[in-house]
Amino acid sequence: MTKTISAAVALAPWETEIRELPTPPIPEDGGLLKVEVVGVCGTDVSWYEHLQKPMILGHHVVGYVAAIGRQAARQWGLREGDRVAMEEYLPCGRCTFCRTGRYRLCEATDSRKGGLRYGATPLEVEPGLWGGFAQYLYLHPHAVMHRMPDAVPPVEAALTLPLSNGFEWMVIEGQVGIGKSVVIQGPGQQGLACALAAKAAGADLVIVTGRSSSLRRLELAKQLGADHVINVQTENLVERVKELTGGEGADVVLDVTSGGTEPILQALQIAAKGGTVILGAYKYEAIPAFDSDLVVAKTLTIKGVRGHGYQSVEMAVECIASGRFPMSLLNSHNYRLADTDLALRTASGRGEPNPLLVTVSPWQ
Amino acid sequence: MTKTISAAVALAPWETEIRELPTPPIPEDGGLLKVEVVGVCGTDVSWYEHLQKPMILGHHVVGYVAAIGRQAARQWGLREGDRVAMEEYLPCGRCTFCRTGRYRLCEATDSRKGGLRYGATPLEVEPGLWGGFAQYLYLHPHAVMHRMPDAVPPVEAALTLPLSNGFEWMVIEGQVGIGKSVVIQGPGQQGLACALAAKAAGADLVIVTGRSSSLRRLELAKQLGADHVINVQTENLVERVKELTGGEGADVVLDVTSGGTEPILQALQIAAKGGTVILGAYKYEAIPAFDSDLVVAKTLTIKGVRGHGYQSVEMAVECIASGRFPMSLLNSHNYRLADTDLALRTASGRGEPNPLLVTVSPWQ
Amino acid sequence: MTKTISAAVALAPWETEIRELPTPPIPEDGGLLKVEVVGVCGTDVSWYEHLQKPMILGHHVVGYVAAIGRQAARQWGLREGDRVAMEEYLPCGRCTFCRTGRYRLCEATDSRKGGLRYGATPLEVEPGLWGGFAQYLYLHPHAVMHRMPDAVPPVEAALTLPLSNGFEWMVIEGQVGIGKSVVIQGPGQQGLACALAAKAAGADLVIVTGRSSSLRRLELAKQLGADHVINVQTENLVERVKELTGGEGADVVLDVTSGGTEPILQALQIAAKGGTVILGAYKYEAIPAFDSDLVVAKTLTIKGVRGHGYQSVEMAVECIASGRFPMSLLNSHNYRLADTDLALRTASGRGEPNPLLVTVSPWQ
Amino acid sequence: MTKTISAAVALAPWETEIRELPTPPIPEDGGLLKVEVVGVCGTDVSWYEHLQKPMILGHHVVGYVAAIGRQAARQWGLREGDRVAMEEYLPCGRCTFCRTGRYRLCEATDSRKGGLRYGATPLEVEPGLWGGFAQYLYLHPHAVMHRMPDAVPPVEAALTLPLSNGFEWMVIEGQVGIGKSVVIQGPGQQGLACALAAKAAGADLVIVTGRSSSLRRLELAKQLGADHVINVQTENLVERVKELTGGEGADVVLDVTSGGTEPILQALQIAAKGGTVILGAYKYEAIPAFDSDLVVAKTLTIKGVRGHGYQSVEMAVECIASGRFPMSLLNSHNYRLADTDLALRTASGRGEPNPLLVTVSPWQ
Repeated sequence: MTKTISAAVALAPWETEIRELPTPPIPEDGGLLKVEVVGVCGTDVSWYEHLQKPMILGHHVVGYVAAIGRQAARQWGLREGDRVAMEEYLPCGRCTFCRTGRYRLCEATDSRKGGLRYGATPLEVEPGLWGGFAQYLYLHPHAVMHRMPDAVPPVEAALTLPLSNGFEWMVIEGQVGIGKSVVIQGPGQQGLACALAAKAAGADLVIVTGRSSSLRRLELAKQLGADHVINVQTENLVERVKELTGGEGADVVLDVTSGGTEPILQALQIAAKGGTVILGAYKYEAIPAFDSDLVVAKTLTIKGVRGHGYQSVEMAVECIASGRFPMSLLNSHNYRLADTDLALRTASGRGEPNPLLVTVSPWQ
Repeated sequence: MTKTISAAVALAPWETEIRELPTPPIPEDGGLLKVEVVGVCGTDVSWYEHLQKPMILGHHVVGYVAAIGRQAARQWGLREGDRVAMEEYLPCGRCTFCRTGRYRLCEATDSRKGGLRYGATPLEVEPGLWGGFAQYLYLHPHAVMHRMPDAVPPVEAALTLPLSNGFEWMVIEGQVGIGKSVVIQGPGQQGLACALAAKAAGADLVIVTGRSSSLRRLELAKQLGADHVINVQTENLVERVKELTGGEGADVVLDVTSGGTEPILQALQIAAKGGTVILGAYKYEAIPAFDSDLVVAKTLTIKGVRGHGYQSVEMAVECIASGRFPMSLLNSHNYRLADTDLALRTASGRGEPNPLLVTVSPWQ
Repeated sequence: MTKTISAAVALAPWETEIRELPTPPIPEDGGLLKVEVVGVCGTDVSWYEHLQKPMILGHHVVGYVAAIGRQAARQWGLREGDRVAMEEYLPCGRCTFCRTGRYRLCEATDSRKGGLRYGATPLEVEPGLWGGFAQYLYLHPHAVMHRMPDAVPPVEAALTLPLSNGFEWMVIEGQVGIGKSVVIQGPGQQGLACALAAKAAGADLVIVTGRSSSLRRLELAKQLGADHVINVQTENLVERVKELTGGEGADVVLDVTSGGTEPILQALQIAAKGGTVILGAYKYEAIPAFDSDLVVAKTLTIKGVRGHGYQSVEMAVECIASGRFPMSLLNSHNYRLADTDLALRTASGRGEPNPLLVTVSPWQ
Repeated sequence: MTKTISAAVALAPWETEIRELPTPPIPEDGGLLKVEVVGVCGTDVSWYEHLQKPMILGHHVVGYVAAIGRQAARQWGLREGDRVAMEEYLPCGRCTFCRTGRYRLCEATDSRKGGLRYGATPLEVEPGLWGGFAQYLYLHPHAVMHRMPDAVPPVEAALTLPLSNGFEWMVIEGQVGIGKSVVIQGPGQQGLACALAAKAAGADLVIVTGRSSSLRRLELAKQLGADHVINVQTENLVERVKELTGGEGADVVLDVTSGGTEPILQALQIAAKGGTVILGAYKYEAIPAFDSDLVVAKTLTIKGVRGHGYQSVEMAVECIASGRFPMSLLNSHNYRLADTDLALRTASGRGEPNPLLVTVSPWQ
């Protein structure tokens, strides 16, 4: 183990500095992860933009166990050299949410309320190594890890968490499976992961919608298995979905568009009688024309969703490891640790064009 | 069997006439029900108010099989003299919805699209006896019936369908059971039935809310088993629910208020993290301040609900037959067939004060 | 329409005669199907072997609507020329089982109790055309049909019902999906269909077991997507499953072996803690060493399964139509109507070697 | 806090000694519980009978938090003086089972494999206070606790865990609710708790069966709400259940009889088509006449069950706190700490007659 650890520390909004941090002692119930690759998430960009205290960002982390305490090794069933994908949560393991398998609702994971969370915990909290944009990540006793087979290419492994959300929202929340029709509004990283999860679960009709500025992503959606794509600026969304679903509408409609309230209103229209509308994106404004009568008349279910659970991460790992899908197509930009700021700028849309999956490889 | 049948025929909005209709022949696959009691439903009032063609209203029907065809007897497992509670639907039995147990979505039950439905089918459709406000009801081959034990008082039996909705919305859709907390907004017939169903299923905290004009109904809610009632005009709903649920909010919140969009907005606020909001009433207007971000942040589920299924009607019959609840408390007005117009006026709030459960007994 | 219809009438065990039957009139609520292809089922062989009354066998039927009554056309949403796959059931549509979507339990479908069922109803019941081994099949008012896209090859379409069982048993009963491990004991038509359904639903580990006499079928299992096969006569089943599942055992274990009680005992052993064992085959003998303590200690679930439901048939049609799987590999023997007896003998193992999917094409 | 703690230490089979143990220091993440009451469980008797190392038995523990570390107080949301019911498990909180809400399957809870568990951990493991038969119980950092309202009588609170099993087995595993019929074979503490849970969840028909030697318990079953009881030695079980269920059999059948394989065979017979058989008792022998064909023909589900989950304990606490059921009727013997050996002998059937709920109150 090195004496110091190189880390890209975000000091202020859009300001990052590479620093050398001391290697911490390894506790009995914790460890240290050698970071192999980190995917940049929209949440990283948002934290960076509104940064209040210096911290290491990055929470879509894959790496190898570099050091591990005796007790941690036994409880996690891991040893040095094992490759894992990390969850961002550090749940307490003892509250009602933790005891009932819903640890992502655990108060201890809420970094806004003083909780710990990878990629969102200040440097001042010992040992500081709370983010993926560094050579090593601190394995806190409460860390949640999933084994990642060695054969999986890093850039695919870095998609574990986005794809986990895909399985959580489509399969676990939306009950998508054989014979189901799905419309995914918004072809970003999350939308594409949902499209892929829906196809992996056997959905026979997956439609991805986007705007003219997303034509490349819509094309990618098709390469990943989507059956149809719709450009909402040149096609009539409602009419087209009606046509593609034999007039019945879609069983499940997801909104992960970045802006505007229109997609939610349209979701209610294109959902089938008895269908489900899944809301996966914040709008930061009210939905003025929200038609609750349509929800009643069509007996729709609307579900707000956030993040993933243990089972959906396992699904994602298994789906990635199966090699069934050409996931590396999502890879668009890969950076060195020294270029972490650039990676975040690119993911934010301020840097190089057409970002999709932006990754940082700290040891490159 | 009599040669003619007395029926209260609605001729135009708020205009009813008692007529003698010919007794129809009994088909091999159908029959005739001697109507014992009919509960007046808000839907009856609505149909009456907007009546376009003469018809016999009334669809919360309980009665005795008076005549039955040989084939019908075999398929229904019924014989003359058996007492049954009717559903209002006459589903085709062959479409996808029927084949999958969701017959209330069957197109054939939609009287607005030429389908048949008890209490909503014009007199001109042979044999005309499609409503409960008559001495006999025609048992169409597609009728859906449930055995009603002879010992159940008529006025309690007449609550079968409202209580079925209660079980459908609370237990089947809302998963209410032991240890769950429920807020029911709106203490009408439907709200009270939902409160009762929730308690029957073991909910440990049932709160019913209403306005100052509903104090008597709120009192009734408590007699039926509700743990708390809230007058939303004199108490702070959000604070009070927070207090009663130990700060967590309610697992399930139902809106069956008759007017205003505020209850839906409040439902989102008083639902617990991960909770369910059930919409059971039309608003006839948009919900301008609908906060979809709150749905995401709290991972809420919103469900639009309508009517009942076979299983929930069975639950209602068994609950009523068990005698566990003082259901006859709901009884407020009982009329003779000749006073059917008055019964409908009372149920509409235009007649006698404080209507709750208004019934008509055609043979009284 | 022809005046007479050629049909292969089973007169006695292992005795079939081609007869010309009169074309029946088309009722308002029924129709006639031009039979395109019929798959031979083990049940057909069993009925043939124990035949008591003359009848037309065959119930895995695919064909084109040749004539249809006005009312039937409306209720079924079909017209002449439409291609459909038939279910064997003729459910009443009005009993509790029918009303709750479980029509395969409807008494009217039990041909042993005087009910009607395709491929199991005597010729003497008018109009006699109750089986697929004929040019036309009578479309009874209670028939359950599923649209089959025209592009699907007949021999694949003939697999609809076996594959429906696969989806019913694996996906609906066994909850097989992404990340699940499955062991299928018995590589017959049903076992292979289950393997395929499990893979279609995203199972990441499907193991099919068989005996030395089934090596060709095990090979076929792999071609259809099974991840591993085990020859139980040359390999240690329990050890091998343990190895392939990382020591944990399989989430779901199915028994569809034709004989012996050993597979059930082994199923309890190779199921994972909390796993599910699905029993899909009759044993005609007690299971003397049945270890209920193992069921408790491992908190196993055991489910007896039979047939399919509406949803699983829809899944099968969609899976076949998707063309994702090389289903035509299952095709082993195809016969003309005149050779129906030979088809049944082959399917029984008495005729040509290595039968798997044996079909009859009446118009060939 | 006292300097020493009185504890009933089981030294060898049927040999207990009251000892004074030193009061341990309170760790940051743990605490100490002042034991109010302990219910004696059949498992305690079994551990006592086969005791290998000295230990404090007793794991149905209710008490008051006497001391608590700062970190524990925060994570558990508890403080000194709070009353809680304990679970027996001390799950690690980090393995897959813990992460998915199934902590009772966590390896760390398996005391046979070196895991810790209340009432089953040797005295030699520091600090020794692992059982309820003592003035204080050590609150290990992994302890699972549930708040118990102060108003609940101790003897009722002591039923929390048996009743939790009742809710787990009946409601969560067996899906018992409104309109369901249940047969419970075996009127011991566990069977009665299941009967009570089934009624609490709204089951309309609960039948408890027993032998002539259990007539008092069968009588008690009726007082607790069972609708019918059957003496299997003087009545024909199969015929009687058929009669009471209108010929259909019971939706759910539970076996918690202490001996013999016959109840399992009968369970298959008295279960309804599509019903569920729940196995909650070890037989220590094979079931020679086990009829798997009946399982297939009736499409039965058989479930092996063990213990409770977080949710079912919450249900039990809420049910007890509601005061709906006369639970104190179950109370049969209450002992002082000094009489712990006698309490265990009584619970084993070797001491005073008719034991049902035997409790020890260490501070009495």
